[in-house]
Amino acid sequence: MSSYDVVDLIRAKRDGRRLGPDEIDWLIAAYTAGEVAEEQMAAMAMAIVFRGLDAAELTRWTEAMIDTGERMSFAGLNRPVVDKHSTGGVGDMITLPLAPIVAACGAAVPQLSGRGLGHTGGTLDKLEAIPGWSPDVEPGDLIRLLDEVGAVICAPGPGLAPADRKLYALRDVTGTVESIPLIASSIMSKKIAEGTPALVLDVKTGSGAFMRQREQAVELARTMVGLGRRSGVATVALVTSMAMPLGRAAGNAVEVAQAVEVLNGRGPSDVVELTLALAREMLTLAGLDADPAEALASGRALQTWRAMIRGQGGDPDAALPRARHQRVIEAPRDGFLTRLDALAVGVAAWRLGAGRARKEDPVQAAAGVLWHAGVGERVRAGQPLFTLLTDTPERFDRAAQALEGGWSVGDEPGEPQPLLLERIAG
Amino acid sequence: MSSYDVVDLIRAKRDGRRLGPDEIDWLIAAYTAGEVAEEQMAAMAMAIVFRGLDAAELTRWTEAMIDTGERMSFAGLNRPVVDKHSTGGVGDMITLPLAPIVAACGAAVPQLSGRGLGHTGGTLDKLEAIPGWSPDVEPGDLIRLLDEVGAVICAPGPGLAPADRKLYALRDVTGTVESIPLIASSIMSKKIAEGTPALVLDVKTGSGAFMRQREQAVELARTMVGLGRRSGVATVALVTSMAMPLGRAAGNAVEVAQAVEVLNGRGPSDVVELTLALAREMLTLAGLDADPAEALASGRALQTWRAMIRGQGGDPDAALPRARHQRVIEAPRDGFLTRLDALAVGVAAWRLGAGRARKEDPVQAAAGVLWHAGVGERVRAGQPLFTLLTDTPERFDRAAQALEGGWSVGDEPGEPQPLLLERIAG
Repeated sequence: MSSYDVVDLIRAKRDGRRLGPDEIDWLIAAYTAGEVAEEQMAAMAMAIVFRGLDAAELTRWTEAMIDTGERMSFAGLNRPVVDKHSTGGVGDMITLPLAPIVAACGAAVPQLSGRGLGHTGGTLDKLEAIPGWSPDVEPGDLIRLLDEVGAVICAPGPGLAPADRKLYALRDVTGTVESIPLIASSIMSKKIAEGTPALVLDVKTGSGAFMRQREQAVELARTMVGLGRRSGVATVALVTSMAMPLGRAAGNAVEVAQAVEVLNGRGPSDVVELTLALAREMLTLAGLDADPAEALASGRALQTWRAMIRGQGGDPDAALPRARHQRVIEAPRDGFLTRLDALAVGVAAWRLGAGRARKEDPVQAAAGVLWHAGVGERVRAGQPLFTLLTDTPERFDRAAQALEGGWSVGDEPGEPQPLLLERIAG
Repeated sequence: MSSYDVVDLIRAKRDGRRLGPDEIDWLIAAYTAGEVAEEQMAAMAMAIVFRGLDAAELTRWTEAMIDTGERMSFAGLNRPVVDKHSTGGVGDMITLPLAPIVAACGAAVPQLSGRGLGHTGGTLDKLEAIPGWSPDVEPGDLIRLLDEVGAVICAPGPGLAPADRKLYALRDVTGTVESIPLIASSIMSKKIAEGTPALVLDVKTGSGAFMRQREQAVELARTMVGLGRRSGVATVALVTSMAMPLGRAAGNAVEVAQAVEVLNGRGPSDVVELTLALAREMLTLAGLDADPAEALASGRALQTWRAMIRGQGGDPDAALPRARHQRVIEAPRDGFLTRLDALAVGVAAWRLGAGRARKEDPVQAAAGVLWHAGVGERVRAGQPLFTLLTDTPERFDRAAQALEGGWSVGDEPGEPQPLLLERIAG
């Protein structure tokens, strides 16, 4: 491989010139090998925040990150493989019912998931609330479980796109997270390396999402769909609202409980709507003519959930952890819940212990927030509106502060706000 | 002092928000102390490349860099103090005759100077061609020499604005040198810390200058003049052409020889013109009603030069080093030298050994380029046009390549190009 002067490459990007394919290959490999210093990659990342990466640069950048590690393959499976990724939100436990629903329809769903940081939760943190369940799956077990059960939710191995792990840690401390091409390549490098031939993206927008502005979320969705398709992954994105939290619970055990409610046919309507919308996209990409609503109604999805949890050491019948302390916030008057801000709920759950400030922090399985009415629903003065849950009651006050101003009760229910905003299919 | 989250500050600058004075103080102090990591400052520097610093931010940034070190004072001197700084060019030995001329007129000129990097030479490298001369002057000797002789050209101590040294080294490897506020604060932090009450800037523009575009040079000049004045330093800038090299020599010993020619009343007219223009500005700022041309013509400036060189251990009568090898390039035809590119000459001198690629490299005292006609002057076919000088003749070919295309001989002398482009006085 040719060698380049990294300062020349930084200056080129800074001045708005395109990086060539060989330059990108060299940069990513040299950075991963420690030959390009952290401060040099930080300057490059900030230049990319301002100048972007065009489609060809982005595809090569992503492939170069993948090439620093291993590529998985699901070629030997008897089921069509399809994966899903959400950019993260509050109460976003959709993966939990979605993976077994899609698996129950005949697909294989290798769901490599992450942990929560800040006010958004992580799928692995949620599932760890289930006694015995482990996110660590040996490669051989992964294939066997995908064949037998159809769904695995596990931690990605360290071998997938190690450049991304190093670059993400750098971006996190240098104010360079907010770059659409860098976000897109970070997400997609792992998904492409994973070897899935099909991918459905849930790109969230609104106060509780990383992309607050809808236009940005749409741009990110378009960027990832284009990147996926250029890299041979059939990719579709739904842009969905995270202006208010999903469902009725934000936390770990409380979201698992809600997922089980969904699988029992009793979940909140917004969660069911989004889960089925994503399931239909996944099944279409997988080439399966199956009805996810039927898989849900028939109880087959619930059976798959139970098999999936057992397959990773969990006991689907075990009681979930319960918080040692709770505080109730009551409705101040009769009326309708007219507003519930996703960020406020997410920060409250985080402060109660459901989330972490640093990636090495532990989370409380039982901490979280329940809300007892959805937006547009009637409330009565004095009824419980929120229940705050934690094992560490000194956290209640700051959590309650986070909720203040984050909701309103009014005289009219208000117009319903759409959950599914846009579909982007390349 | 308050403490801040550096990522918040990077994001603020990235998103175009102003940094507050306390934020800037904290950032510079924490970076200098190693509490803000190099990669974080690199991202901040790149954000500043794109977003800039406004006048208030820049003043505080510069003061904060000064506050990381010591401040000198010339308050006890019997002469008015005035300093000069050039942004650097090819054949720019103006400081050498200028300092003794201004000193001979009654001012004190504490010229803290640097070394060359790349194709532009450094004043200290040039003077070190004089046998015995040393750039290291003890603080007590500095004051005594300024009182007795009036001019000292020496290396700044490590105590002046250490934040700037650390930040400059970082910018050099991260593609963040090219930022007008960062350049301005780097130059001015050392000049303000030095304690000079008056400063004349020679801001060069053209192919051989750091600022190739005149508009950029003017903006840098305005920025530095404003910064100096807000920090209590009476500052004037001349924007001058570096489209062609100054004088007739680029190198170290060859430029010293040219300076002595100027002081003997026989120097190239462009060098004399610029030297006297800068001297007049310096004397005006120093409040001295003296004629620098008279100081030159009378030989008093030459006497001051001799005293200045002796004051720092040098022998003004010693023979200067002579190159062991030379190669002559002849004029190909009769005509006029119509073009001579400063960058081509500078790179040729650099490649002959007069400059350095890395700051730890040595330079050759005798290496350099002489040109035997100025632009607009008549040349005859076969006359020597350039003399290349080096101790290491394997360098000739690449130096001659650098000159190729950098000059032209034509039928008409062409229009004279102005040397002094703009005067900026706040």
